[in-house]
Amino acid sequence: MKLQVAIDRVSLDYALDLAVKLDQFVDIVEFGTSLVKDYGLVEIGKRNPNLSHAQLLLDLKTFDEGPYEFEKGFDAEGDILTVMGAASIDTLKGVYDVTRKRQGEMFIDLMETSDEKITQIADFENVTYGIHHSHDAAIGFDAVSTVADFHKKFPAVKRISVAGGIDLETTKKLAEQGIAESVIVGSKIIKTDDPVASAKQFMEVIK
Amino acid sequence: MKLQVAIDRVSLDYALDLAVKLDQFVDIVEFGTSLVKDYGLVEIGKRNPNLSHAQLLLDLKTFDEGPYEFEKGFDAEGDILTVMGAASIDTLKGVYDVTRKRQGEMFIDLMETSDEKITQIADFENVTYGIHHSHDAAIGFDAVSTVADFHKKFPAVKRISVAGGIDLETTKKLAEQGIAESVIVGSKIIKTDDPVASAKQFMEVIK
Repeated sequence: MKLQVAIDRVSLDYALDLAVKLDQFVDIVEFGTSLVKDYGLVEIGKRNPNLSHAQLLLDLKTFDEGPYEFEKGFDAEGDILTVMGAASIDTLKGVYDVTRKRQGEMFIDLMETSDEKITQIADFENVTYGIHHSHDAAIGFDAVSTVADFHKKFPAVKRISVAGGIDLETTKKLAEQGIAESVIVGSKIIKTDDPVASAKQFMEVIK
Repeated sequence: MKLQVAIDRVSLDYALDLAVKLDQFVDIVEFGTSLVKDYGLVEIGKRNPNLSHAQLLLDLKTFDEGPYEFEKGFDAEGDILTVMGAASIDTLKGVYDVTRKRQGEMFIDLMETSDEKITQIADFENVTYGIHHSHDAAIGFDAVSTVADFHKKFPAVKRISVAGGIDLETTKKLAEQGIAESVIVGSKIIKTDDPVASAKQFMEVIK
């Protein structure tokens, strides 16, 4: 299982510095939607951290104007870009075509996506499908059982990622479960006194 | 009926210049999602066009982390901010609270929002509900009949806006129909040789 570390709600300077520090230790560094909307893809592209080991995911959360946003995201040197599963089929197809053309990777964020819609969009090849519990949700979620249920319901989906308030204990259980291809951890790494040390702890439990 | 002019997929310099030129003639100037994601709210806030007549709408298309994004959007001096109707109820409630606290305005973009969900979220007070045909859609739509159908289906929604490839002829029909509170026009104004002259034409037919 891969570890994706989500950097959110911090300054771009801090995010760039942290990305470089995490580069050698984690699989994917995510620049969250807050960084994209606060600083913009033009600036992120100019100051790209040029990671040597980890992939850079830009959490665009594209909902419309898919081809435009994905071209801009790949221009900013994102390796992986996100689109909402709740977006229209035309938007999803549009970003899929751009992703193939640009030889990048695509991640579909399934937040608030109906089961019916997931079934409709489950067959994109080499695409990661992210089970994502809303940051704003009043009620928590059990990531392990959610992944198990999802896998049963949508066996066609090969590459599953999971996000939403995930801690070390849950990460360990997800690794043992062996279904998810990647886990996304945000505040439980980023908001600690030593994010690099925390990331190493998470990497230990997923080996 | 009000006219909202959407500025999208241009440089921030061009957008700021055009916003100032349109200020006296239109009701709402929209900085589209492309401007937000390309340049970021920090930069947009620093270089705010300080419109004296028109309101500034920032098309955030918020889907998660609602309170954070709306605080940043109001910090950037947006008068009206957008959230997706397809976002979670918790996100919608979160941005509604921030909007009231900051004495701003909120616009719910109903793109890809199910009828069931619209019914659930139809009762926010002083909120605009935007019928929005996807930019990426392969097939066009009839704005006039869509607005009529929507009004019949959701009589509780008082403030309706409509967007998606709308031209002068359709704008005239929408004004005559008298249901929509505002119409959003993008390329039919922005992509003409003289956007200000085009905007004046649109203002003429909605009077």
